[in-house]
Amino acid sequence: MLDASQPMRLQSYLCGAWRDGRGACKPLLDAATGAVVAEIDASGLDMAEALAHGRRAGAALRAMTVHERALMLKAIGLALLEQKDDFHALSLATGATPKDGWIDIDGGIGTLLNYASKARRELPNSRVLTDGLTEALSPDNSFSARHILTPLRGVAVHINAFNFPVWGMLEKLAPNLLAGMPAIVKPASQTAYLTELVVRRILATGLLPEGALQLVCGSVGDMLDHMTGQDVVTFTGSAATGQMLKAHPEIIGNSTRFTMEADSLNACILGPDATPDTPEFDLFIREVMREMTAKAGQKCTAIRRVIIPRAQTGAVRDALAARMAEVAVGLPGDKATRMGALASLAQRDDVRAAIARLQAGAEIVAGNPDAVRVASGDAERGAFLNPVLLYADQPLAAHAVHEVEAFGPVATLLPYDSPDQAIEIAALGKGSLVSSLFTNAPEVAEEIVLGLAPFHGRVMIGNRDSAKSSTGHGSPLPMLVHGGPGRAGGGEELGGMRGLHHYMQRSAVQGTPRLLAAVTGEWTKGANSHDGTHPFRKSLAELRLGDRIVTEQREITLADIEHFASFTGDTFYAHMDEDAARANPFFDGRVAHGYLIVSFAAGLFVQPDPGPVLANYGIDNLRFLTPVYPGDALGVTLTCKAINPRADADYGEVRWDCEVTKQDGSLVAQYDVLTMVAKEWKG
Amino acid sequence: MLDASQPMRLQSYLCGAWRDGRGACKPLLDAATGAVVAEIDASGLDMAEALAHGRRAGAALRAMTVHERALMLKAIGLALLEQKDDFHALSLATGATPKDGWIDIDGGIGTLLNYASKARRELPNSRVLTDGLTEALSPDNSFSARHILTPLRGVAVHINAFNFPVWGMLEKLAPNLLAGMPAIVKPASQTAYLTELVVRRILATGLLPEGALQLVCGSVGDMLDHMTGQDVVTFTGSAATGQMLKAHPEIIGNSTRFTMEADSLNACILGPDATPDTPEFDLFIREVMREMTAKAGQKCTAIRRVIIPRAQTGAVRDALAARMAEVAVGLPGDKATRMGALASLAQRDDVRAAIARLQAGAEIVAGNPDAVRVASGDAERGAFLNPVLLYADQPLAAHAVHEVEAFGPVATLLPYDSPDQAIEIAALGKGSLVSSLFTNAPEVAEEIVLGLAPFHGRVMIGNRDSAKSSTGHGSPLPMLVHGGPGRAGGGEELGGMRGLHHYMQRSAVQGTPRLLAAVTGEWTKGANSHDGTHPFRKSLAELRLGDRIVTEQREITLADIEHFASFTGDTFYAHMDEDAARANPFFDGRVAHGYLIVSFAAGLFVQPDPGPVLANYGIDNLRFLTPVYPGDALGVTLTCKAINPRADADYGEVRWDCEVTKQDGSLVAQYDVLTMVAKEWKG
Repeated sequence: MLDASQPMRLQSYLCGAWRDGRGACKPLLDAATGAVVAEIDASGLDMAEALAHGRRAGAALRAMTVHERALMLKAIGLALLEQKDDFHALSLATGATPKDGWIDIDGGIGTLLNYASKARRELPNSRVLTDGLTEALSPDNSFSARHILTPLRGVAVHINAFNFPVWGMLEKLAPNLLAGMPAIVKPASQTAYLTELVVRRILATGLLPEGALQLVCGSVGDMLDHMTGQDVVTFTGSAATGQMLKAHPEIIGNSTRFTMEADSLNACILGPDATPDTPEFDLFIREVMREMTAKAGQKCTAIRRVIIPRAQTGAVRDALAARMAEVAVGLPGDKATRMGALASLAQRDDVRAAIARLQAGAEIVAGNPDAVRVASGDAERGAFLNPVLLYADQPLAAHAVHEVEAFGPVATLLPYDSPDQAIEIAALGKGSLVSSLFTNAPEVAEEIVLGLAPFHGRVMIGNRDSAKSSTGHGSPLPMLVHGGPGRAGGGEELGGMRGLHHYMQRSAVQGTPRLLAAVTGEWTKGANSHDGTHPFRKSLAELRLGDRIVTEQREITLADIEHFASFTGDTFYAHMDEDAARANPFFDGRVAHGYLIVSFAAGLFVQPDPGPVLANYGIDNLRFLTPVYPGDALGVTLTCKAINPRADADYGEVRWDCEVTKQDGSLVAQYDVLTMVAKEWKG
Repeated sequence: MLDASQPMRLQSYLCGAWRDGRGACKPLLDAATGAVVAEIDASGLDMAEALAHGRRAGAALRAMTVHERALMLKAIGLALLEQKDDFHALSLATGATPKDGWIDIDGGIGTLLNYASKARRELPNSRVLTDGLTEALSPDNSFSARHILTPLRGVAVHINAFNFPVWGMLEKLAPNLLAGMPAIVKPASQTAYLTELVVRRILATGLLPEGALQLVCGSVGDMLDHMTGQDVVTFTGSAATGQMLKAHPEIIGNSTRFTMEADSLNACILGPDATPDTPEFDLFIREVMREMTAKAGQKCTAIRRVIIPRAQTGAVRDALAARMAEVAVGLPGDKATRMGALASLAQRDDVRAAIARLQAGAEIVAGNPDAVRVASGDAERGAFLNPVLLYADQPLAAHAVHEVEAFGPVATLLPYDSPDQAIEIAALGKGSLVSSLFTNAPEVAEEIVLGLAPFHGRVMIGNRDSAKSSTGHGSPLPMLVHGGPGRAGGGEELGGMRGLHHYMQRSAVQGTPRLLAAVTGEWTKGANSHDGTHPFRKSLAELRLGDRIVTEQREITLADIEHFASFTGDTFYAHMDEDAARANPFFDGRVAHGYLIVSFAAGLFVQPDPGPVLANYGIDNLRFLTPVYPGDALGVTLTCKAINPRADADYGEVRWDCEVTKQDGSLVAQYDVLTMVAKEWKG
């Protein structure tokens, strides 16, 4: 992979070609050996044209359905998975151990694949997404509204951090491309060589429309001067840089969406119940150690503040110190190495400076930032540092510990005197990406988690039951939001399908249901309906929104109710006992079972012959609105509401609006019937 | 109400008392007569202490459940409704006609009441809201996650515009107070006297916890210097001021949430099909006229750009000009007046200056901004202006019309040559709150609305079917998002329950289900369950999350299936025809009806005797996961999942998790059963 004699000159992929910058290259050094790995420069490249190229490329992404985009992401993810050994080999140069590399590389690809599969499960196979239910704005259903989500027409510019060159890119690209918006990725220079390799492999698949993904290796130059209100900027990195970019005149002036995810002073709290004789204590120690040493502590989510019952100070300090002494620091590729190098010597200088500032209100109780001990490698040429533990006896007064981040294997012990105080100490961080709490007591979990929640994007509870299954304090997950308020930047990323919203505009569309249906691609009450051929006789190729069946009426007799009760065993008093039913605030006497109503409804609307309808796979939002008494007659109107052909099967989902009404027209029940229907049917 | 001899000195309500500013008062003039209505000053008041007071007050709001907050809003709304004549009387001084006042006053109170009722329908009666479904993070259900929403711990500062002194406040307070966050309202000075009166009446109800609502009449001084990451700022007004505030160092530095809703260059498009002989043409003319004249054009949502097929230029111009000539401008309280005054003489100067700038690419085709004709009142002392219509022959080249807003009764005609160009012209506004389209053709609606959507927070389609029921281009509605991208500020307000999210932190909480349930207040799969007394025997007072019944198994026979088919009439082939069922991609032979499965399930879990369970009112998220064949035996586990006592009834909703499994343990069906259960039950 690496030819030591000839460093790679990184290129930028812009406007359809790989391009060299026009200035002097800056060397990028191997974090552990100091050898030159690559050279970087993007000066003189035309960023305005790159944005224009990206914006033009949006049309190709928008022409694809969400499922088509998801299948594209899946194919890309699988292609990257096959090549992951190449990425792992290069990842060592960043100072990352193979385990660290797993978080970055396998974690990044996994996020892509998770989005690809979740999108196909949770979203329709369409180009326009709806948000929430139809809002009826007039009693006669002549005017209604629906919220839709459409892709923004600009480019998403991702300014990423050095610590996760692969995951950091892919966790943003997954929701971004799924949403139908093109991207420009700008990795942090220090580790850009790994991002560049992955982008080369992504582009080599030929799966992406040209322009959907561009890359800047080096400075983005004047790119932000060309932002519009349809573009998006995401920033991951230090709060200071992020805030400067966020206040850029064009970003403010155009209300360009700006999502910031800044490193924060994440806390881990030992519950008052988690004394040293409990499994939670051991799990807590293990978690703090893992977070201090994984990626040499260079994670935005790493534990910086360790909040513990004052009585446990000695026990926690001793347990951590003992484990810290065992952490073998050395060359990332060395099998014996437990913790690799920091990203660069400059990074190590920064961490040492931060430790010095922390000492204003805290003292070092384990480790020594100045005397590096390595198990392999050169302690001076490599950016090595052993873990350092500090202790602040008066956490409420130790301001630096809540303000200064040492972005390395460094944490501070903070004793608390009450659960309230533990929350107060955590909140002094002014907003964090994540905190965790180790407890086995529900009342502790409730009090502390609800106290932490307003200050955090994620809160993890650790205990004995999840010892083996927990994904850990430090791991953002594709289906959970990532980002926190205040110091953490105030942004949100990931969060499953929520993540797509950052790249889409939500618009309320109002109109008469017939026209609204044309826009949303879903039938809504009041829109045109078509009678004629029973819609169960139509394949997806023939079925149209609004196709419906209005059934005959069927009377429900007392004998039906009694028969159904004895057949099913559902002899609930409201169906069987006139006096008890009358005593009920909702009924005037014995009523039909809800299950009987929907069963008779199916009997009325089903077309029995073999045909394109393959199965009823569920029901949504069933509400019983008017009680049905013996002698009432029921009719059903079943209308085709949404059609979603699967991209990779011979059938698709059809959602039917089902209304059961009485002889007097009153609405008895309303629900969606979900069926699988064949794309083609030769009867 | 108004004592002309003694102008009101407006006060600020801060830190529990009504306070005078310590500087010189500024007089506020009646828009139509020039008389002094009130005096305003808030200088020297302690804004930092007001923020601290508000933040302390948050605890009282957070101690209430969402339904309790909703009932509080309802009571406030009803109290204001009774006093609305007082507000209408004072509203005339702002230049608003009674009809304009209706939008502001009745519209504002209606928004409060709509939120109060919608919240009780759509949200649980709890303090912690959940967002989305439980995410299982381990196959053995020992580790799961749920997103929760908790109120931010700061204060929401609302900086409002002069045009809607009542609605502008109430539309923000409704979601804000419902979410459980305190507020400080800062109305625009010009019309602050009306806001002050409404706040006095709200506080007089005694319904709000002290500190939940504070008011600044005058400048907010150094308030923004004291912002934290837990505070929220909303701004409604001009883009220039909003952008300046948004870039405030403390707002950037603390990632304080900042929502901007700026006046924008909203468009109204006449569809190519809507020729002068169609009802849509007349509706379009009526809508443009209404939007030009309502509130004298001083609405953020007013139509500024009138985009029309080039062929219709003459017809549209003539129709509008004829109607404009009929608009009686005069004293707002005068019965003959159709359009009142602008807010101030300074505002009129601004509008005249904007018209002059618009004339760079457009010419006036109707109306004269300099010669004011009034039906009543004094044309010079009152801020009167007659409607003005401009025409830009080359809309793509007329830059000013897409950049300069005349915040008054002014609009510009812009001819288009194709639907694509109509979208392009609208998009030149760089993001608007709303556009509307008049068409009766579904394909026109689809093309143009989807083209407009990424640039708009709301798009309204007008046509003959909604002529009577349409709420109109210019009306934000409580259940629809209000706000647009880019020039419109990039913010979102309202949107039904979405609106609460702006005042709450979304946090992903991970943990073992038992502890997760303690935090969310909802049972989730894997959490503790309790067998024993059948849970249908327990009232809300006795029922606990996790109470469950695990039933015996019941075999489903072919005879059952055939019997159910003949009883209900549901003779779908998959139940009746072995060969046809086998040919189906999902089944290996005849299967039981889904409706039979849920009916038998109810028979298994129901406890039949009269008891606290009053009714089954619905089912949610029913999915059939494994086919059931003759000879399979089914059992049910029904577990109490969520309990919502109604604040204003003797019962509440109970949501049950229902799992139907087979003899081999495989999951046949999964759904939520929804019941009403009595708070107390004496059996």
